Amino acid sequence: MSSETPAPSKAAKVLVGADDLKAMVTDVFQARGARAADAAAVADALVWANLRGVDSHGVSRVARYLELFDKGESVADAEVTVTRPRAAIAIVDAHAAPGPVAMNRAADEAIAGARECGIGWASVRGTVHTGAIGYYASRITDAGMAAVGVVAGVPNMAYAGAKGAAVATSPLAVAVPAGRHELVLLDMATAVMALGRIAQLKAAGKELPAGVALTADGEPTTDPALAKVPTPVGGAKGAGMSLVFEMLASGLVANPIVPAFHSGGKEGRRHRQNGFLLAIDVAAFLPLEEFTATIDDTVDAIKSLPPADGTAEILVPGERGRRTRADRAATGIPLGAKVWRALTEVATALDVPVPAPLG
Amino acid sequence: MSSETPAPSKAAKVLVGADDLKAMVTDVFQARGARAADAAAVADALVWANLRGVDSHGVSRVARYLELFDKGESVADAEVTVTRPRAAIAIVDAHAAPGPVAMNRAADEAIAGARECGIGWASVRGTVHTGAIGYYASRITDAGMAAVGVVAGVPNMAYAGAKGAAVATSPLAVAVPAGRHELVLLDMATAVMALGRIAQLKAAGKELPAGVALTADGEPTTDPALAKVPTPVGGAKGAGMSLVFEMLASGLVANPIVPAFHSGGKEGRRHRQNGFLLAIDVAAFLPLEEFTATIDDTVDAIKSLPPADGTAEILVPGERGRRTRADRAATGIPLGAKVWRALTEVATALDVPVPAPLG
Repeated sequence: MSSETPAPSKAAKVLVGADDLKAMVTDVFQARGARAADAAAVADALVWANLRGVDSHGVSRVARYLELFDKGESVADAEVTVTRPRAAIAIVDAHAAPGPVAMNRAADEAIAGARECGIGWASVRGTVHTGAIGYYASRITDAGMAAVGVVAGVPNMAYAGAKGAAVATSPLAVAVPAGRHELVLLDMATAVMALGRIAQLKAAGKELPAGVALTADGEPTTDPALAKVPTPVGGAKGAGMSLVFEMLASGLVANPIVPAFHSGGKEGRRHRQNGFLLAIDVAAFLPLEEFTATIDDTVDAIKSLPPADGTAEILVPGERGRRTRADRAATGIPLGAKVWRALTEVATALDVPVPAPLG
Repeated sequence: MSSETPAPSKAAKVLVGADDLKAMVTDVFQARGARAADAAAVADALVWANLRGVDSHGVSRVARYLELFDKGESVADAEVTVTRPRAAIAIVDAHAAPGPVAMNRAADEAIAGARECGIGWASVRGTVHTGAIGYYASRITDAGMAAVGVVAGVPNMAYAGAKGAAVATSPLAVAVPAGRHELVLLDMATAVMALGRIAQLKAAGKELPAGVALTADGEPTTDPALAKVPTPVGGAKGAGMSLVFEMLASGLVANPIVPAFHSGGKEGRRHRQNGFLLAIDVAAFLPLEEFTATIDDTVDAIKSLPPADGTAEILVPGERGRRTRADRAATGIPLGAKVWRALTEVATALDVPVPAPLG
């Protein structure tokens, strides 16, 4: 940012071009020791989230990765290792590599398994911050496949009947390739409201909607100052989904997070994530065009339903994000002044060039 | 039911032994043309649901199967056919066989694929009434594997922003084998409240909780008389899950249900279901005992959490059903007088012996 640029006010947004942002984040990760391809992978995953409007998984996370590098809890140039115990399954050991590095490798491995066997599964062990898991599921659809993805992390969400943080807001992504339409992409946390959104409302001092968070004592609250623990979607349903996701994601790679967290030791509270991706090779079941025509018909059927009062248009999963992406790719990504300042400070300290904002 | 038995009052429950009930239902299906093994499979799946307290998927459905046989929409002795286009995937064409016949075969095929490849997937095309899909997922854990199951059916649930029934209450089941503990079994509809439970409250003339159903016009209601369409869990989340489940379950077997339903033809409204089961061979990832020890630890960690006020005990998915099963296996399955009467009438008409109730 040139010294002529007036300091943005606290509420102002800075518009940055997606490619500029990606280049800057790539340079930052390379400057911190990541291989060029890995640095670019992290940048692409973060900017993808920003482009789609999921800013809580975007470049605002850069500082957190660097903090994890500093603490040794993530390793910028970790070499991911892969074993393939059977034809359709791979175990990707991240060795604390950043999420996008490990999860991209898992997507490649899941695709390879699916090409051979019809479906392919890749479990990821011991990574950090995977971000928006819809990103990895989408990558699998680029290969003409459908995808399911899950990530498990350190408990931060309530569980039906328990006080305090019990399980994680472990997300589920399902991506389905379409034909005329773009892919259908469900990417949802198991919480009623994503943590990032709660944090946004907190920051804005706005009251929370009822039912999205509990106090430290496990009482429902709409006061952002008292809200400590987000609630699971559908009570026992979201809590149960999160729990079985932890069991599959962490259990299969012998790296349990939930029991370690509750055992009380410091190590158990260390940030880490496990996950898995499933690729389904559609063409092994039926001609891909026949499948994507069905998906198109299904999308059309839903979008043509009579809308409820007050609804202008019925959307399918992923549609809102795609529109935001179209806007932001054209006009730039609006970043909070604080996020942009932190990012430029990090870049400057690492002698990484800072692009001029678009506005 | 002997003529000495006094006619039960409308509210009374009749207690019937699980094995007696299973034998009667098996005989009924055989009398209607099912092969012995298939008849026993249907009876076992239905009584399993009753034993676990999921009475809406239990023997109350017998009459509906017979109605589907009468209409030719299900075929009691249909020969299920299987293709295995690649090593890890199978397509089970039910040819309108009852759900348990097709889904059991799918469980076997998924297990076979997983034994060879680490994971196995079986898609089911064109069955009817699969019932409680946790049953099939549990069968896979009997082979020391974890399981995921999904079923898609004819739209009966709301979709965020649309009026009327748009998508189905398509359930998700995830089953995880444990060691000291019994398996963890999540079995949930994508609706806030299962249709069967809404029907029970309607029958009892009780007001519905807020948020579980809409009127025909798409307005929220708690009046059981006006409630026509159950709402998805978490709004767009449950609706999105149901939609992508339909896409995977129906799209992969070229038997789309949602677009056919909304195209307005009578054929599109015919009862039918598609589904899939995924088996994960835990022992291909790590020693089974190590995995099940992790699951035990995870269950213990959750159950040892400080309970929220008013909670006597924290439960994990499947635990409540298992306790009901223990009770009902010991004391008998309580059936509504109307359900029991309908069942005995069907049996009598088919010359099937009716067991004496336990109470």
